[in-house]
Amino acid sequence: MFLCLYDKYPIARGTQAALISFKPPKMADNGVLPVDKLTISDTVEEAEFSQRVLIKSILGRSDGGAGLAGKTLKVGGWVKKGREQGKGSFAFLELNDGSCPANLQLIIYSDVAPLGQFTPTGTCLHVEGVLQMPPEDKQGKQSIELKVSKVLDVGAVDPAKYPLPKTRLTLEFLRDYVHLRPRTNTISAIARIRNALAYATHTFFQKHGFLYVHTPIITTSDCEGAGEMFQVTTLINDSEKLEKELIKNPPPSQEDVDAARATVKEKGEIVAKLKSDKASKPEITAAVGELTKAKENLSKIEERFKQKPGIPKKDGKVDYGQDFFARQAFLTVSGQLQVETFACALSSVYTFGPTFRAEHSHTSRHLAEFWMVEPEIAFADIEDDMKCAEAYVRFLCQWLLDNCLDDMEFMVEKFDKNAINRLKMVASTNFIRLSYTEAVTILEEAVSKGHKFENKVEWGIDLASEHEKYLTETKFESPVIVYNYPKGIKAFYMKVNPDKKTVAAMDVLVPKVGELIGGSQREENYEVIKERILEMGLPLEPYEWYLDLRRFGTVKHSGFGLGFERMILFATGIDNIRDVIPFPRYPGRADL
Amino acid sequence: MFLCLYDKYPIARGTQAALISFKPPKMADNGVLPVDKLTISDTVEEAEFSQRVLIKSILGRSDGGAGLAGKTLKVGGWVKKGREQGKGSFAFLELNDGSCPANLQLIIYSDVAPLGQFTPTGTCLHVEGVLQMPPEDKQGKQSIELKVSKVLDVGAVDPAKYPLPKTRLTLEFLRDYVHLRPRTNTISAIARIRNALAYATHTFFQKHGFLYVHTPIITTSDCEGAGEMFQVTTLINDSEKLEKELIKNPPPSQEDVDAARATVKEKGEIVAKLKSDKASKPEITAAVGELTKAKENLSKIEERFKQKPGIPKKDGKVDYGQDFFARQAFLTVSGQLQVETFACALSSVYTFGPTFRAEHSHTSRHLAEFWMVEPEIAFADIEDDMKCAEAYVRFLCQWLLDNCLDDMEFMVEKFDKNAINRLKMVASTNFIRLSYTEAVTILEEAVSKGHKFENKVEWGIDLASEHEKYLTETKFESPVIVYNYPKGIKAFYMKVNPDKKTVAAMDVLVPKVGELIGGSQREENYEVIKERILEMGLPLEPYEWYLDLRRFGTVKHSGFGLGFERMILFATGIDNIRDVIPFPRYPGRADL
Repeated sequence: MFLCLYDKYPIARGTQAALISFKPPKMADNGVLPVDKLTISDTVEEAEFSQRVLIKSILGRSDGGAGLAGKTLKVGGWVKKGREQGKGSFAFLELNDGSCPANLQLIIYSDVAPLGQFTPTGTCLHVEGVLQMPPEDKQGKQSIELKVSKVLDVGAVDPAKYPLPKTRLTLEFLRDYVHLRPRTNTISAIARIRNALAYATHTFFQKHGFLYVHTPIITTSDCEGAGEMFQVTTLINDSEKLEKELIKNPPPSQEDVDAARATVKEKGEIVAKLKSDKASKPEITAAVGELTKAKENLSKIEERFKQKPGIPKKDGKVDYGQDFFARQAFLTVSGQLQVETFACALSSVYTFGPTFRAEHSHTSRHLAEFWMVEPEIAFADIEDDMKCAEAYVRFLCQWLLDNCLDDMEFMVEKFDKNAINRLKMVASTNFIRLSYTEAVTILEEAVSKGHKFENKVEWGIDLASEHEKYLTETKFESPVIVYNYPKGIKAFYMKVNPDKKTVAAMDVLVPKVGELIGGSQREENYEVIKERILEMGLPLEPYEWYLDLRRFGTVKHSGFGLGFERMILFATGIDNIRDVIPFPRYPGRADL
Repeated sequence: MFLCLYDKYPIARGTQAALISFKPPKMADNGVLPVDKLTISDTVEEAEFSQRVLIKSILGRSDGGAGLAGKTLKVGGWVKKGREQGKGSFAFLELNDGSCPANLQLIIYSDVAPLGQFTPTGTCLHVEGVLQMPPEDKQGKQSIELKVSKVLDVGAVDPAKYPLPKTRLTLEFLRDYVHLRPRTNTISAIARIRNALAYATHTFFQKHGFLYVHTPIITTSDCEGAGEMFQVTTLINDSEKLEKELIKNPPPSQEDVDAARATVKEKGEIVAKLKSDKASKPEITAAVGELTKAKENLSKIEERFKQKPGIPKKDGKVDYGQDFFARQAFLTVSGQLQVETFACALSSVYTFGPTFRAEHSHTSRHLAEFWMVEPEIAFADIEDDMKCAEAYVRFLCQWLLDNCLDDMEFMVEKFDKNAINRLKMVASTNFIRLSYTEAVTILEEAVSKGHKFENKVEWGIDLASEHEKYLTETKFESPVIVYNYPKGIKAFYMKVNPDKKTVAAMDVLVPKVGELIGGSQREENYEVIKERILEMGLPLEPYEWYLDLRRFGTVKHSGFGLGFERMILFATGIDNIRDVIPFPRYPGRADL
């Protein structure tokens, strides 16, 4: 140990090595500072709506913040690592505010405040200080640090109780702490990548003149006809309320009903008698009044008599007429059918929202709630559709390289050494295009050369994950679009090709995740689609509105769906889909 | 009638007057052509993923498309109005493709194709043609028109059957045709405005370094504790499946169970006897095998015997342990509490997604499914929160003026003559700020001067809509932010002020809709918020995760929620919220 240029400033800075090596990232459209305007005399601006400078706007500069030395400013964040030095005379704190993966190093002296409260991992700090250059021989590792002059606020942590104290926690362990896991390097990097992909999605489609349409979450259409849908209801709640009410206030008995009926009869006879006796008008009016009251009372009693605890039934089935929407309602499995109504009016549209499947799948690839991006384009055929899908995926990859390189470097270091190379490859490669028939031929050739697949390969099968991976990872080492699938394995709304055997469907396969996108040209011919619905044993009635789009001013159109979490798995190299969505929902689990 | 410069080109163009007068709009970031690059020799590019030029990129130019005269291109869209002229020798068709409110005029001669099929409103056309200048004396009304040389595709309409043939349809009527109403001028203009506001929202927050977080739709937390939530379940579906199964395959009777028990007993006795008789090992093994089988059979029969049709119950209550998530689950009413977990790690975040209320409200202001924008900012107090809310709303207004002026002009003409002025006023005005106490004093002064309110005014009341409108529309004629509300009328998570009587809450009130935004600084002190939860009679257990955010590294933070549909009502001047969301959901209604 020896003292450096600065007073009381020791050299032991071993934890620096644990930091992500910081290279200046390219700045996003939303970057805080345009790189080209940087000069050594630059100032850095406080965030407009919080009392601090974003750490990204210090460390994200092309000079790593060095040009800001001497500036006084406030920062806020959470301590990643803290340690006292110099016999407790000062402490080093690595502070992260989530704006970038890199931490800003704080140095705080004991004459500013007692140091012990600051060092536990997870402590929140809001401080003012002066940026200063670290000692000359350490400048390779750290361009700038903040010497704290004033502590504005501390959110303390009792390390004995903090659930996330260790530096190495498994992603599986963190799933039990969804409310705290955003504080970890991995989950926060994924959050920034997810954010970047979402904004890139909007930017891509807006740039191409697509309109964003909010398709409904609650739906009365079952898009896939698969029935694996969550039900949305108020019936159970209503029946529980009724049950409580009936206990508090028991329903009338048959005798009560009979008595009320007898009263009505009696009052009716009185009125009849008064009338036949030609009694005075006031007398008759009074008697009619009593009869009316008796009738009202009877109908109330009969109403309450009919109330039964439990879900309301009619003809032995659940009576959805009494549910909130007066019919059975579900959570959507796809916005496609609904967004088509806008494509058939506004031409180029997309939806981006949550979708749901009530499947009991306990795999690393399935969620009960996940996000989908679904563009739909009028005057577009399957070729246009493939072109759009390819351009979109390549745009996303390039966007991450341009805007999230620091987070991607973290992923490379911690999870998948190929993650950045994969993005670069996809961003710069023309996707291979194969008809389904060609794809099957290639797979059959592989089998004949001794490649083993678990699932049999023959024309007509739905390609299994292993087949998709073979094509994209082994055979071509490139993204592959397979198109023109057999009619029998695809949905009713896909356009039947002239061969009558295949439909104009396409899947985009990429290394690491296999199928990333599924899409098709839609059948726009009224007669053909009607026949297809019947052929698949589906009822016509629920699809009448969908048929209307073909009945009136029909248009050639195409679209696709991208599973947003799959795209994040592809980008990050993370293995389990539960780790790339902020609040994963799966069988038996819906925390918060 | 007289012939103009062009052969067979008559002058009677009366329908032009019915068009929205077209003024060149400012181009958006996502505009197809940058205005400053326009020259008379410009070409116009085909949309990248559909076989046509967007009409916006013709008519949206600063020259209204005039500079493109002579260009051959394809367009696609739906006929708004068509009429044959010159004794059926040609037809004028007004074509709209949804990219802008203006229609492109097509002129098609009968030697290209029979004209009758093109003229019905709603017909879809995909055509190729040459742009040409209209006759000189008509250039004020129409800068350019397309002379059709080739019809690529027609989607016909039988006018006798088309549900939307008339030009004047009420918005209420259109609600019965949610799948076709995007083809109307009004609903398509609203769709473009909604799209613009959504992208403006993302752009605003991204520019300020906020990260977009997808909070969950399915939740097990009841944020407001109000209980007006939709339930998400598979129990009803499962119980119906079970019911069918039990009919097909009736459950065992008590006798079946008794018989199976008797068999187990008998087989057990045989084993016991063989053992006590010291029988051979194979003999005993065989008997034990039979006993095991009998036991297995019994447990299956007992299991099936326990199966009862209907929702599964336990201790007289619905057994949610058997539901998909193994507990009761709901549709979210707000993403705030969940997004706080990310704010307390990544500092500046926002969520933008659907939220739900199972309220039986049949008003023009309520939906069962609606979208909310909810930013949450760490190291920010109520002042920062108000600053952010004001900046955001003003940004949205300016964005519409910059990017949707043509649609806004349509709104002014058809619905609300003040719509553009209101946007301009809000975009350029510093919002008035009033404490709740000051607001009540102003209202009391109004009452003392003779202003009548339906609801009594006194310190402690929740401001009613009439009070809010008085402040923003009558008193100040400006947006108003009211802050520091009485503790008793606000949620548990709002920060208690030093006076202990008020909380750091704020509402943004704007003319036309009243409350547009509600927000607050959040209580970050663990002891105080715990006390507040108990004070309001809420249980602590479901909020333990929320308390953890205060237990470990707590941070001063603030946020707000903007009702997205309210913002659209404010912008467009439309009266009913059911008309500003693509697929409205309300009691008794969830079409598609």
